[in-house]
Amino acid sequence: MNDTFLRACRREPVDRTPVWFMRQAGRYMPEYRALREKHTLLTLCRTPELAVEVTLQPIDALGVDAAILFSDLLLPLEPLGIPFDFKAGEGPVIERVVRSADDVSRLRRFEPREALRVVLEAIRLLRRALDGRVPLIGFAGAPFTLASYAIEGGHSNNFAATKSLMYQDAPAWHRFASLLAELMGDYLRAQVEAGAQAVQVFDSWVGALSLADYREFVLPHVRTLFERLKGLDVPTIHFGTGTGHLLEAQREGGGDVIGLDWRTPLDTGWKRLEGAAVQGNLDPTLLFAPRERLLAGVDDVLAQAGGRPGHVFNLGHGILPGTPVENVKAVVEHVHARTGR
Amino acid sequence: MNDTFLRACRREPVDRTPVWFMRQAGRYMPEYRALREKHTLLTLCRTPELAVEVTLQPIDALGVDAAILFSDLLLPLEPLGIPFDFKAGEGPVIERVVRSADDVSRLRRFEPREALRVVLEAIRLLRRALDGRVPLIGFAGAPFTLASYAIEGGHSNNFAATKSLMYQDAPAWHRFASLLAELMGDYLRAQVEAGAQAVQVFDSWVGALSLADYREFVLPHVRTLFERLKGLDVPTIHFGTGTGHLLEAQREGGGDVIGLDWRTPLDTGWKRLEGAAVQGNLDPTLLFAPRERLLAGVDDVLAQAGGRPGHVFNLGHGILPGTPVENVKAVVEHVHARTGR
Repeated sequence: MNDTFLRACRREPVDRTPVWFMRQAGRYMPEYRALREKHTLLTLCRTPELAVEVTLQPIDALGVDAAILFSDLLLPLEPLGIPFDFKAGEGPVIERVVRSADDVSRLRRFEPREALRVVLEAIRLLRRALDGRVPLIGFAGAPFTLASYAIEGGHSNNFAATKSLMYQDAPAWHRFASLLAELMGDYLRAQVEAGAQAVQVFDSWVGALSLADYREFVLPHVRTLFERLKGLDVPTIHFGTGTGHLLEAQREGGGDVIGLDWRTPLDTGWKRLEGAAVQGNLDPTLLFAPRERLLAGVDDVLAQAGGRPGHVFNLGHGILPGTPVENVKAVVEHVHARTGR
Repeated sequence: MNDTFLRACRREPVDRTPVWFMRQAGRYMPEYRALREKHTLLTLCRTPELAVEVTLQPIDALGVDAAILFSDLLLPLEPLGIPFDFKAGEGPVIERVVRSADDVSRLRRFEPREALRVVLEAIRLLRRALDGRVPLIGFAGAPFTLASYAIEGGHSNNFAATKSLMYQDAPAWHRFASLLAELMGDYLRAQVEAGAQAVQVFDSWVGALSLADYREFVLPHVRTLFERLKGLDVPTIHFGTGTGHLLEAQREGGGDVIGLDWRTPLDTGWKRLEGAAVQGNLDPTLLFAPRERLLAGVDDVLAQAGGRPGHVFNLGHGILPGTPVENVKAVVEHVHARTGR
């Protein structure tokens, strides 16, 4: 089995730097687009066989060192009592937003092993299908990022409604965030029991907060979530974007591996995360660049990592639609060639 | 005349910390919404008398220490050959996007004194109307931020098209950015000649770039722009959001005053900007908070500024729609009361 990814997460020496990509299965791949012509995004997520098929698409096509479960961050909103849908070109749309203490009170605590069993079934099938080729990563949204969708009703540029709830009714916010922390902790535990060999917590939008707000409104819940993962023998990854001002606090929150994006140079970022492994941090838009510039960018990330144990090569955020597949593949090959012994 | 704003920009001692707000005239004000029921945004910008009226709305209502010309960053795109419009709820929409060297070649260099004379006329009328009550700030978009609208066709979350042009055709990008730098430099000079007593350069979205990309693709043009302002006897403000990783480079680009947003603590941010004044950095969403929390946030900004000469109180970004006017006013009064001698 190719265990370079798991070893790097544990900061053990590796034969070559492992590579995987956020959203490595997705719209940029023709195989994925072909499936999407027949099924909605939610059908892909909720049909274990289809989720397995999509998850596997990039494994052979790219030669990456880890598979990540194909699923959506928002799936847990439905059993919580927050239905949602995806509108073409608009992303997620949530009609019944959470804006008040009453709204929070109406949310339903659920048992992930039941409410999200299609996801766990996909994980079980995937482990069998992967047959040890590469490790399988499970994931869930962090309290802030997941709550922000429920509060804003979709993606936001300024998170005004989310911050307003924090500021105007801190107890309601904390109840919501702690519920999400507990549920996502349980959900990730269930994913590991089903076979996930590492888990990533996506706090994609938390960089919108000041450090003081992060410490007051988010950190306690992130800590709850990661504490619920203790005792599981799998590496945990803590990811965000635009969090250069939050790194030390994120590290306090938990995670064996901390994600860095391209705004944080990998070398100085890693120094601030003493004792952790790091994942990142190529700008996803560099995958649109001519080959020479793209690979120079990859070399720069590798030089900043300096061959120290504990670097997982990845982008700073997910692969964008329209990304040329051959460029993604070239990055995998280049990282392997450059770092292989 | 209330010259605290100009004195603070020059890092001279002031009787009390000056305050103004980005987008202090706008949708959150009932007077503004009343005007917008009768006129489009572009009509307000292109009719000097109306631009004057909107600019003045917050001066009496809030007691701020500076007026900022009501206008739109995108106005210069039209004479450049890039028509645009605003669609309700969507922001700017640009049909004929700039994506190639050919597109750049088709752009028309223009003389701001002619093409944007309605803006300059508004400035002349404003100086008369203000009659020395508070100084008047002019503004323009920085090359990256202005180019990004023209390239993306509107606002973007990832700036993939803008970065793609940089990476795929660096000479075309540099021609475009340097044209914008020259034109915006001339435009700001013309604004100062018409009566603007300070100018702000908005590089609102440049925080999306890595430091290396900023230095290669943006800094030379920002420098060109600020060099074109040399010899004018007015303070210059250099503003961006999410630029905690770029501060030193932005400072190299120019500006007597550097804008900080809430992601960069004002104390540590200012230390990195030795020799500059700073503007900021309250999170605009705090204006939705209950009074006590809001004013605690204001106190925190003031404590970090530490009463040192060279602090202009502002938000980290513009006032959001829906912001309660009385909260904005309370901030002005609080800053004045706390810092007045």
